[in-house]
Amino acid sequence: MMNITHKISTLRKARAEAIVKLSLPETATAVKEGRVPKGNVFEFARAAGLLAIKKTSDLIPDCHPLPVEYAAIRCRLEGLKIIITVDVHTIYKTGVEVEAMHGASVTALTIYDMLKPLDKEIEIDGIRLIDKKGGKSDYMQYAG
Amino acid sequence: MMNITHKISTLRKARAEAIVKLSLPETATAVKEGRVPKGNVFEFARAAGLLAIKKTSDLIPDCHPLPVEYAAIRCRLEGLKIIITVDVHTIYKTGVEVEAMHGASVTALTIYDMLKPLDKEIEIDGIRLIDKKGGKSDYMQYAG
Amino acid sequence: MMNITHKISTLRKARAEAIVKLSLPETATAVKEGRVPKGNVFEFARAAGLLAIKKTSDLIPDCHPLPVEYAAIRCRLEGLKIIITVDVHTIYKTGVEVEAMHGASVTALTIYDMLKPLDKEIEIDGIRLIDKKGGKSDYMQYAG
Amino acid sequence: MMNITHKISTLRKARAEAIVKLSLPETATAVKEGRVPKGNVFEFARAAGLLAIKKTSDLIPDCHPLPVEYAAIRCRLEGLKIIITVDVHTIYKTGVEVEAMHGASVTALTIYDMLKPLDKEIEIDGIRLIDKKGGKSDYMQYAG
Amino acid sequence: MMNITHKISTLRKARAEAIVKLSLPETATAVKEGRVPKGNVFEFARAAGLLAIKKTSDLIPDCHPLPVEYAAIRCRLEGLKIIITVDVHTIYKTGVEVEAMHGASVTALTIYDMLKPLDKEIEIDGIRLIDKKGGKSDYMQYAG
Amino acid sequence: MMNITHKISTLRKARAEAIVKLSLPETATAVKEGRVPKGNVFEFARAAGLLAIKKTSDLIPDCHPLPVEYAAIRCRLEGLKIIITVDVHTIYKTGVEVEAMHGASVTALTIYDMLKPLDKEIEIDGIRLIDKKGGKSDYMQYAG
Repeated sequence: MMNITHKISTLRKARAEAIVKLSLPETATAVKEGRVPKGNVFEFARAAGLLAIKKTSDLIPDCHPLPVEYAAIRCRLEGLKIIITVDVHTIYKTGVEVEAMHGASVTALTIYDMLKPLDKEIEIDGIRLIDKKGGKSDYMQYAG
Repeated sequence: MMNITHKISTLRKARAEAIVKLSLPETATAVKEGRVPKGNVFEFARAAGLLAIKKTSDLIPDCHPLPVEYAAIRCRLEGLKIIITVDVHTIYKTGVEVEAMHGASVTALTIYDMLKPLDKEIEIDGIRLIDKKGGKSDYMQYAG
Repeated sequence: MMNITHKISTLRKARAEAIVKLSLPETATAVKEGRVPKGNVFEFARAAGLLAIKKTSDLIPDCHPLPVEYAAIRCRLEGLKIIITVDVHTIYKTGVEVEAMHGASVTALTIYDMLKPLDKEIEIDGIRLIDKKGGKSDYMQYAG
Repeated sequence: MMNITHKISTLRKARAEAIVKLSLPETATAVKEGRVPKGNVFEFARAAGLLAIKKTSDLIPDCHPLPVEYAAIRCRLEGLKIIITVDVHTIYKTGVEVEAMHGASVTALTIYDMLKPLDKEIEIDGIRLIDKKGGKSDYMQYAG
Repeated sequence: MMNITHKISTLRKARAEAIVKLSLPETATAVKEGRVPKGNVFEFARAAGLLAIKKTSDLIPDCHPLPVEYAAIRCRLEGLKIIITVDVHTIYKTGVEVEAMHGASVTALTIYDMLKPLDKEIEIDGIRLIDKKGGKSDYMQYAG
Repeated sequence: MMNITHKISTLRKARAEAIVKLSLPETATAVKEGRVPKGNVFEFARAAGLLAIKKTSDLIPDCHPLPVEYAAIRCRLEGLKIIITVDVHTIYKTGVEVEAMHGASVTALTIYDMLKPLDKEIEIDGIRLIDKKGGKSDYMQYAG
């Protein structure tokens, strides 16, 4: 694990995205109309994803435990794709990229798990960091 | 999850209370005389409750992970009631009410679990916040 | 921890109930009309409660880990009360009462946490076992 | 959570795959030659992935806890792609697809975390189920 | 992780022992007389050790999750030594040696943590398996 | 749990050591030559140990959760002994001794678990703190 004892706490932000690709238009319609038997897909998966963000350092050996000071998960349907956007902010000595990506991954897996009785061909089509602020490039002194 | 990146760390305290209601005087006597087969009820449940306080953000999706800097759990018997009082302190940007209530809940459930072989009608009769200091009303700059 | 190596696996069911008591009619209205800023209260809390049911033996020292084979959480609003009903089923050697009660407790705490920005006087007004089947009284051989 | 109390335990297998896409040939060379400063990438990530497989029901609300009776994680480098294959077997009443996919996701995230100091453009390029045996189509009585 | 899908469930037992070596007779006296400020050392550590036994497969990558069907932790003081004995039983396809040793280790660390304000030179002087039954040598068919 | 709200954050370091004692020279040779069927022993156990360091406050009731800002685990073979050295650093109000010892313990147990198919007589021969800096004796103001 990297030694961060000498680093300065700054505001760090990361945004990650995961895409869940459905295979059937009927699945998309069921999501849109709130007719998925396992429940309200986006709201249920959002709860799971928020918990997962906070467990990142419990699962990834070299991740530092850090104070997650803001997290938001948004899901939207575009055709046969569910696009998950996860934002995580902290004021700490290291970034929150892996936290955002782990949150996106667990949100996607929860949606996969809720929809697989309806659609056998769902895939998680990429998890990637789409934005990152703070750290070396974006200094801001710790005010807290 | 609320965005707390802009907030200031202050000393925050919360006290929660849970009440375990026994149905049989014999159960109360067994607790008082240390004759419960599963062990020393208050001391055993105290260990479980302390661990639970620290796991709150692992269970409640919108709770921020935070540095629990003091926690104490006290149990006392009053007639057929076991009264559990949980204190949690932190120096952070958000309060510890849910942490104190979750600690009270798990302490109560551990007591319930230890006593149910003796008494089938035990109930957890309310979990509530009884005191809260810090935050907006009780400002104190972070000195640490 | 009780020795259950000699016991027979049977179908066991438990139902627990927790009551969240609101203080303001406006809070009840916000829940009913889906206008709580933190999200869809019942669906979000349901996800947290289901995860908590499965973590019971992680929190309560003497609880046996067991295969949760069914769990359901239902929330309904009656006046100023939110009534949470949790069902847990297993086919195993010991009951699921504490699992159901722990699920009810974490569902209640998640609701408390989502509503406390709107209503400072919320209490969790009792967590209790309301039904239990299987075990000594209701034998059914393990078919799995 | 689906009610599986009436189902029969059979041997269930699932294989999932995740792909980590590097952007720099130097990163691939560092992995191949064992010169990644954070350690032996595949062996380190394998340990994290195995632990994650077992935590799946802790993270995904509707997943049943189940006896993981075999798990294997293999990683190989093909050009700029690291291909992760995860196998999970159980003898139980429900499948292990989500377990295999969650293991693949955490293995991929651990590799991402180890390599990001070397390569800023790494992506996780798809997590998908590639094989599944058992369940309705492949019956085998529980012999254990 | 070893493939155990083809194995037969039998009763398996393991006993592990850990020794905590105190450096000061005053520490032993404080334990004996119940005057340790942090609480009832043996009962408090017993709760932590029981929870740890059940978390073994969460911490050791190749350990199978398994139904802990009995666990007991006993601590006794002999001169300057605290001897911790941990018994774990299961009816499953693999043994519980690591579970017993992990329980002994966490019980010992909890005692260490409670006594270090009194005694700076405490050591954990060995954790070892002292008995093991079941498995190849001691067959018993699964009756459950 | 000790009240540390009034304490000052300083750089704290702890080093712990655990010794795994093998009984067979063949086991030592298998480790040295990378021929252990369960994988690369030191690298695999290092991942498990790092995760365990971060879970210490989850297992030991009175341990404060704290920001682990550096952790390193080194294993070396000396004759029939595997010597595990664990370093943990934090900038916080309390030390990381128990974190280092818990990391050493889980690293040792993972090695034990990987080698027990080869060697039935392995023991964990002592876990002890070997160095500690910071706290009362070694003051350094929190700069972060």
